[in-house]
Amino acid sequence: MTNYPNDIPTPKQVVARARALQDRSARLREGAGLVEGIRQVLAAIEAGHELEMLLIDPAKLRSDVARQAVLDAEEDGIPVVDLPTPTFARISQRDNPVGIAAIVRWRPLDLDAVHLPADGLAVLCDDLRDPGNVGTIARTLDAAGGDLLILHGGVDAMHPTALRASLGSLFHIQVAQAPSLDAAFAWAAAQRVQTVATSAHAEHAIWDTELQIPGLLLIGNEARGLDEATRERCDLQVSIPMQGRVTSLNASVAAGALMLEYARQRHARR
Amino acid sequence: MTNYPNDIPTPKQVVARARALQDRSARLREGAGLVEGIRQVLAAIEAGHELEMLLIDPAKLRSDVARQAVLDAEEDGIPVVDLPTPTFARISQRDNPVGIAAIVRWRPLDLDAVHLPADGLAVLCDDLRDPGNVGTIARTLDAAGGDLLILHGGVDAMHPTALRASLGSLFHIQVAQAPSLDAAFAWAAAQRVQTVATSAHAEHAIWDTELQIPGLLLIGNEARGLDEATRERCDLQVSIPMQGRVTSLNASVAAGALMLEYARQRHARR
Repeated sequence: MTNYPNDIPTPKQVVARARALQDRSARLREGAGLVEGIRQVLAAIEAGHELEMLLIDPAKLRSDVARQAVLDAEEDGIPVVDLPTPTFARISQRDNPVGIAAIVRWRPLDLDAVHLPADGLAVLCDDLRDPGNVGTIARTLDAAGGDLLILHGGVDAMHPTALRASLGSLFHIQVAQAPSLDAAFAWAAAQRVQTVATSAHAEHAIWDTELQIPGLLLIGNEARGLDEATRERCDLQVSIPMQGRVTSLNASVAAGALMLEYARQRHARR
Repeated sequence: MTNYPNDIPTPKQVVARARALQDRSARLREGAGLVEGIRQVLAAIEAGHELEMLLIDPAKLRSDVARQAVLDAEEDGIPVVDLPTPTFARISQRDNPVGIAAIVRWRPLDLDAVHLPADGLAVLCDDLRDPGNVGTIARTLDAAGGDLLILHGGVDAMHPTALRASLGSLFHIQVAQAPSLDAAFAWAAAQRVQTVATSAHAEHAIWDTELQIPGLLLIGNEARGLDEATRERCDLQVSIPMQGRVTSLNASVAAGALMLEYARQRHARR
């Protein structure tokens, strides 16, 4: 955390802070990230995350909802920093900034502190490199009624592109960091969570296999997939039958197929 | 098509041509696109598409498969242009170019000339703006054993990011352009293809609805979805049940869920 002598940081301090948080390791070390756009900022507030500061370009901010959020933030004692349009553009990652951003205090949960409900669904992303995939998987997990995203290496949840692709879901679901795959398997075993991997060579198709809850789906890196040893450690391996020339699905699509199969089987049991 | 006086274009001509093809309307007008990387170039060749020229950075090209492709191209009379590393970097869209690219002659099919097989599956992308989505949908369609991608507005199939995300599938499946949604619906009616849209308000979940083949799935623009009038025109509307705070899925994930539901129902009927 950074303290500013006169409570409200100067535009120069804001730009320096926002730029520093473009770096993954800085975000994880400091437990903070820059969140941009009305939907994202509101999702962070609604989910109860603490705002270090709210950044506004008054010349651009048109939305009544956003203006109300600014008033609420001021009332809660959150520093609200007005930035001139060129300064806001320097911290923005967008082509057309809408004029609202926030530095949000956020850390992934400690996996050992997370308890998955008896009907819970979790997804582990193993060293995913595309932030769009991490955000899209969070969005699908939220939509499918899932509970927990576990990140092992790769993209962090406060990557701006991940946040944007998640449409706010990264704030609404629980997100934990696994220090190792060993730790993730130990956690799953302690909580009696069924671990599931996809494999092209698995005997059974996802559709023919009863998926148990609580469940943890493991999704591998975009280029390499899960390694063989990790797949073998899972309680269950299933295949998504492939019929064309490509032999794999995009990570977000494969994760989505699995999560929606959980939803389908739950729906069928009703 | 461009003719070069001495058969082999100069590096300067190559750069100008590659740069011109960065523009969507130039690609569609000229029926050509720049294809980069071993997998993509080989997919274009395997699928029988004509190469206008093959572009090589001999200092970078290590793969035996790629070297063989160069020999084969020379034998077929295709101009093979050696480019110095800095010149190749100017046409490349990648951080680490592998040293092979091609200008491929490619046009979308005229929809009226495409006949969908009796068990066929087609997907229409209505004004999609994210080239990653178009490529990912093509990849999933290929994997799911589908036949035809129909593009209506939005990203073209030769966008470099779409090609890359498709892992070559955009060359292996059929891709047609629909001049209008009216034309797409007329085509579907003439071929007795069931048109299917997703809607949050649909009475039946995808899992409870028998999907008929041949089928055409309509996928809407990322921000707006399909408009109400278009959904109403479809033979079938189904919902993908949503249980979290987000009220929609990413376009690639939603399309994937639908395509894999076709695959699941076909699998269940066996």
